[in-house]
Amino acid sequence: MDLRDYIRSIPDFPKPGILFRDITPLLANAEAFEQAIKEMSSPYIDKAIDCVAAVEARGFIFGSAVAAVLKAGFIPMRKKGKLPYQTASVCYGLEYGQDSIEVHCDAFRPGQRVLLVDDVLATGGTMAAACELVKKLGGQICGFSFLIELTGLEGRKKLGSYPIHRLIAY
Amino acid sequence: MDLRDYIRSIPDFPKPGILFRDITPLLANAEAFEQAIKEMSSPYIDKAIDCVAAVEARGFIFGSAVAAVLKAGFIPMRKKGKLPYQTASVCYGLEYGQDSIEVHCDAFRPGQRVLLVDDVLATGGTMAAACELVKKLGGQICGFSFLIELTGLEGRKKLGSYPIHRLIAY
Repeated sequence: MDLRDYIRSIPDFPKPGILFRDITPLLANAEAFEQAIKEMSSPYIDKAIDCVAAVEARGFIFGSAVAAVLKAGFIPMRKKGKLPYQTASVCYGLEYGQDSIEVHCDAFRPGQRVLLVDDVLATGGTMAAACELVKKLGGQICGFSFLIELTGLEGRKKLGSYPIHRLIAY
Repeated sequence: MDLRDYIRSIPDFPKPGILFRDITPLLANAEAFEQAIKEMSSPYIDKAIDCVAAVEARGFIFGSAVAAVLKAGFIPMRKKGKLPYQTASVCYGLEYGQDSIEVHCDAFRPGQRVLLVDDVLATGGTMAAACELVKKLGGQICGFSFLIELTGLEGRKKLGSYPIHRLIAY
């Protein structure tokens, strides 16, 4: 099964000139979704991952399912003001603007092995901020897993020398 | 393992007088997270669920992992303007205000068997809107699964006679 067959390309979303890769047909297909989760997890099965961290909202979809496969915990990173307990935060530049993400300040125990997961690696701004948050709280980054990489945006340049696994490149 | 031990209660969030049930300690603990996902899925294992639908953002965390356990597809329901393709939408009253949710208009095939999942059943406004969306698009609702039900808010009264499964009641 070629997962690309389940990605729909939508021109001019969210603004003119952007070709948006819509993953909802892949999610809706049980076999494609299962295969994506398995393949996103597979390089990290034997890496003793303690927790998977992901940024809302689409990151939660793959992050949570990959955490379940790896028998790891799941750490949600959220937009400002959404988390109820004390938080640490980092500002970053989005592909389409500016934002900040937060995580609970007790989210990672020192030395915990963390995998960062998202649906799409675009400019890498969100993931670079997520990295900073993990390090700020003492977590140890073991790598990244993405469904899609938009290679032309060179997001991986922002992610240091950590292992990057992705299933589909555009 | 008592999952309640991993729910943190936070007073006055998001506004004074609300006691917020924070599920992040449960998510962060691999065993607790795994047990929650298993128990949320178990009554629906033999119910031929085609897809699990959930509303962003916290709903995605459990919805996606439950879909993976049930070998079902996953349908994300989102806030206005987030989905790239043609959408159907429904307005609803939140516990803390008003909002609308959308789903892609081709999200459900007619007669598809749909399970609705969320972390918390509070007033039931979001889930009633999600129900409406599923029915509008021809899906067949097979039931609900929640981690937590805030029974005092009587949300289940809004959810008709569909089966409701929940792990923890407050």
